[in-house]
Amino acid sequence: MQARNLIDLADMTKEDLAEIIRLAGMIRDNPSIFTDACHGKIMATLFYEPSTRTQMSFQTAMLRLGGKVIGFDNPSNASVAKGESLKDTIRVVSGYADLIVMRNPVEGSAFAASLYSKSPIINAGDGGHLHPTQTLTDLVTLSYEKGTLEGLTIGLCGDMKNGRTVHSLIKTLSKYKGNRFVMISTPQLQMPPYILKILEESGCAYSFSDSLEASIAELDVLYMTRIQQERFPSIEEYEAQKGIYVLDEEKMRLAKSDLVVLHPLPRVDEITVGVDDDPRAKYFEQAEYGMYARMALIITMLQSRSGTLPAPQRWDDARSCKNPRCVTNTESYVPHRFYDKGGRAVCLYCDSLLEE
Amino acid sequence: MQARNLIDLADMTKEDLAEIIRLAGMIRDNPSIFTDACHGKIMATLFYEPSTRTQMSFQTAMLRLGGKVIGFDNPSNASVAKGESLKDTIRVVSGYADLIVMRNPVEGSAFAASLYSKSPIINAGDGGHLHPTQTLTDLVTLSYEKGTLEGLTIGLCGDMKNGRTVHSLIKTLSKYKGNRFVMISTPQLQMPPYILKILEESGCAYSFSDSLEASIAELDVLYMTRIQQERFPSIEEYEAQKGIYVLDEEKMRLAKSDLVVLHPLPRVDEITVGVDDDPRAKYFEQAEYGMYARMALIITMLQSRSGTLPAPQRWDDARSCKNPRCVTNTESYVPHRFYDKGGRAVCLYCDSLLEE
Amino acid sequence: MQARNLIDLADMTKEDLAEIIRLAGMIRDNPSIFTDACHGKIMATLFYEPSTRTQMSFQTAMLRLGGKVIGFDNPSNASVAKGESLKDTIRVVSGYADLIVMRNPVEGSAFAASLYSKSPIINAGDGGHLHPTQTLTDLVTLSYEKGTLEGLTIGLCGDMKNGRTVHSLIKTLSKYKGNRFVMISTPQLQMPPYILKILEESGCAYSFSDSLEASIAELDVLYMTRIQQERFPSIEEYEAQKGIYVLDEEKMRLAKSDLVVLHPLPRVDEITVGVDDDPRAKYFEQAEYGMYARMALIITMLQSRSGTLPAPQRWDDARSCKNPRCVTNTESYVPHRFYDKGGRAVCLYCDSLLEE
Repeated sequence: MQARNLIDLADMTKEDLAEIIRLAGMIRDNPSIFTDACHGKIMATLFYEPSTRTQMSFQTAMLRLGGKVIGFDNPSNASVAKGESLKDTIRVVSGYADLIVMRNPVEGSAFAASLYSKSPIINAGDGGHLHPTQTLTDLVTLSYEKGTLEGLTIGLCGDMKNGRTVHSLIKTLSKYKGNRFVMISTPQLQMPPYILKILEESGCAYSFSDSLEASIAELDVLYMTRIQQERFPSIEEYEAQKGIYVLDEEKMRLAKSDLVVLHPLPRVDEITVGVDDDPRAKYFEQAEYGMYARMALIITMLQSRSGTLPAPQRWDDARSCKNPRCVTNTESYVPHRFYDKGGRAVCLYCDSLLEE
Repeated sequence: MQARNLIDLADMTKEDLAEIIRLAGMIRDNPSIFTDACHGKIMATLFYEPSTRTQMSFQTAMLRLGGKVIGFDNPSNASVAKGESLKDTIRVVSGYADLIVMRNPVEGSAFAASLYSKSPIINAGDGGHLHPTQTLTDLVTLSYEKGTLEGLTIGLCGDMKNGRTVHSLIKTLSKYKGNRFVMISTPQLQMPPYILKILEESGCAYSFSDSLEASIAELDVLYMTRIQQERFPSIEEYEAQKGIYVLDEEKMRLAKSDLVVLHPLPRVDEITVGVDDDPRAKYFEQAEYGMYARMALIITMLQSRSGTLPAPQRWDDARSCKNPRCVTNTESYVPHRFYDKGGRAVCLYCDSLLEE
Repeated sequence: MQARNLIDLADMTKEDLAEIIRLAGMIRDNPSIFTDACHGKIMATLFYEPSTRTQMSFQTAMLRLGGKVIGFDNPSNASVAKGESLKDTIRVVSGYADLIVMRNPVEGSAFAASLYSKSPIINAGDGGHLHPTQTLTDLVTLSYEKGTLEGLTIGLCGDMKNGRTVHSLIKTLSKYKGNRFVMISTPQLQMPPYILKILEESGCAYSFSDSLEASIAELDVLYMTRIQQERFPSIEEYEAQKGIYVLDEEKMRLAKSDLVVLHPLPRVDEITVGVDDDPRAKYFEQAEYGMYARMALIITMLQSRSGTLPAPQRWDDARSCKNPRCVTNTESYVPHRFYDKGGRAVCLYCDSLLEE
């Protein structure tokens, strides 16, 4: 793999992805071969906001490879409470650990961290921005459960508007041939235009639906999502949306016999417990594939580790990103930079447009 | 061992117990032989309420066997805060870990967890219900400190009414021949009738005492307990009871030269610090035996691991357990079931009577 | 090494220090040789107050040696919340772990812990009293970055009054020949008289300065410190002092080409980010040397481990230490003791004068 870090899944070529998927499968089939693959290596998990599931998945992955784990999950305890900058924490921890996995509510923070780290950075979620290893998990699961990443009819159901994992999955799957997307949601929670544009540019077919019941029969894959309360401006708006789309045993009867049902977990009420025993329900297996995907990623990233600091940035831009949740607005020393996208300036860290 | 999980110590036969005790002794005498006994294995410690002592004992046990540990001790951080069910957490974690140790304030939760787990479950305390590894610790300690589990005169002192560990210890020791129990407490904190019934059925002698001083001379074993504030309805009732029974150097002068003093720890004021240097005080050694007992248990449970899900439950009962702290009342999908005990229905999860 | 524990760096002879420094260098140059040096060993990190940096440094050190780590960083969760004494915790944990690293806000607590421990105790900070491994880190850093611990002109800048790390560093470096100290601070935050007395007794030259700019040119080493808000009686006094001494690129231009800039981290604003890329800035390397220093210390302490309890203390003094933060005033069973210093009684635990 060329990339030093995994900040955005777009950093990986299709060949990189194929390599990770292949390696994840090898690990799954022969776990004992990998018991000491990372013997003597240390991974730091820096979780500036708690996410037990993601942290546990990464920790298990490293431990199953014979490596060791340090880190924190409670930043109120951490040195950061004494006002330490992200840069200083990363400089110090990258002297301790061979690999850093970071989750941080600040958008663009993983990329910012990579500027100051001697060790590879894996982005385990930077606010509402990116969460590439969830998508990697989804790809590994689909590869092994469907046998292919091409020619699939993929239903996505629930919150299309705020669903970071759904956006990332669509962007990635749009690079594979012949996939078709059915977006099942209320009008209020429909897919943002920029995702539709990506689909159009890639030549993927897509359609909208407001009924899971009506659409389920045509699907090869159904990706259910949680309606996340924290994404809604009011409890009323949340209550109005949740519970509209619920997958149950009755709807499953309408589906293909080889449908694969996925869900990034944790679920609340979107899938009834009765569906769990259906062999087409693969969301618990998906979590296990996530562990294999992360094992493959850890091995790959450690191979690319140089152990040296990146060259200091010679670039800086006088303009400032307008996104208040962008790392360039919370860590003052970070050099600003924008890239061009169709004639408009976009922040290199958080991918926000400079001018709306 | 036949049992897949350790939910209740009653799941173990006397032969199972003898095997664990023997193995614990081997580990204690030759720890270095076991340094890599669980190499490549992962244990999850899921602590839904904090218990540093128990968690540290389990973690140390697994680490001393060369295994690895994942888990949480702060469920407010965990995915459960996003409303995840026990079933989902267990399904996912049993895909990560080869063995799950769970502590949970909900009664019957360990048994419920075992219905959904690919890996063995060890109950590290399910509310006020069961805490089998404490009793296992006590048995290992007595075996090695007294050389036998039979023919002992065992004093139990303090809170007989609420003391989960005391109830469990009596139930187990009543299966061994010739043991006699002296229950030393105030009338308010005396042993519940169902325990006395067990003793009668097993043919064990027992007596009551309200004076530690008067009873200590006849004892082979003295099991002291903490008066736990959280078990009392008011601070006044707690204050009235605590401090009535205190073991000090003066009382130790009345005791046999081969008395063994135990305490599940942490202690508050029930045993004065002056007793600590008495060679008959074995409560710190007891904690160390607990580590060896857990090492033996971990090895044994991992041997019985199948790595597959249990068959789905085909049973369900329309009746509901009346215990509000029972897992069947907090996790709605759990199938209800009752067993018969002398003509009365008892909840399979929390052992409460259906009708009082 | 003679000493069983590391409570105070004064417990170590110059030969002990030289040995640790030499071993730290060996580990740094050949880390892979030490990958399994502590295989099968357990270290407990008991952090009664959070210090992510120090804890992570110790944990990484042990893990890089192939050992395992248990412990807590959140004592509100721990058994101590049930009123457990320090003695009981240490007795139990020293039955689990081969080595104990403790941080505790109570002064003298590390020494008190050592009275009840079967395993060596490393003091990772006992309130404002001692923090020997920070000084060990500084010594290892200077040894390798300057090539010597003698004949250096050492500037210390910031809070000389409350700076525990600065006091300890001066005391230790005063034992090496030909060192000269320049104390750069406001009059309010100047070095306490007892430190000056130590310098006079050891024959070390020293001078005062109120200007970093004026003094920087003569320095071989510049040790910057954080002005710690928690040490000031009011926010006003803190605000008045902070920001007076800031090391920036401009001042660095006045310094020698082989100056070494150190800082115990975390920094706030005492050193501008622009200085970080200057090759003379060694504070991030210092954190890494700290890891090697702790690896060397762990190996050394484990070699001296006896695994038995210290003999019970036969001494006790009817007099009581007047320091309310002293462990003899928070743990009632600890035997009192005082040593003589120039005809005055000093508490053996917290080094406070009995009579001011």
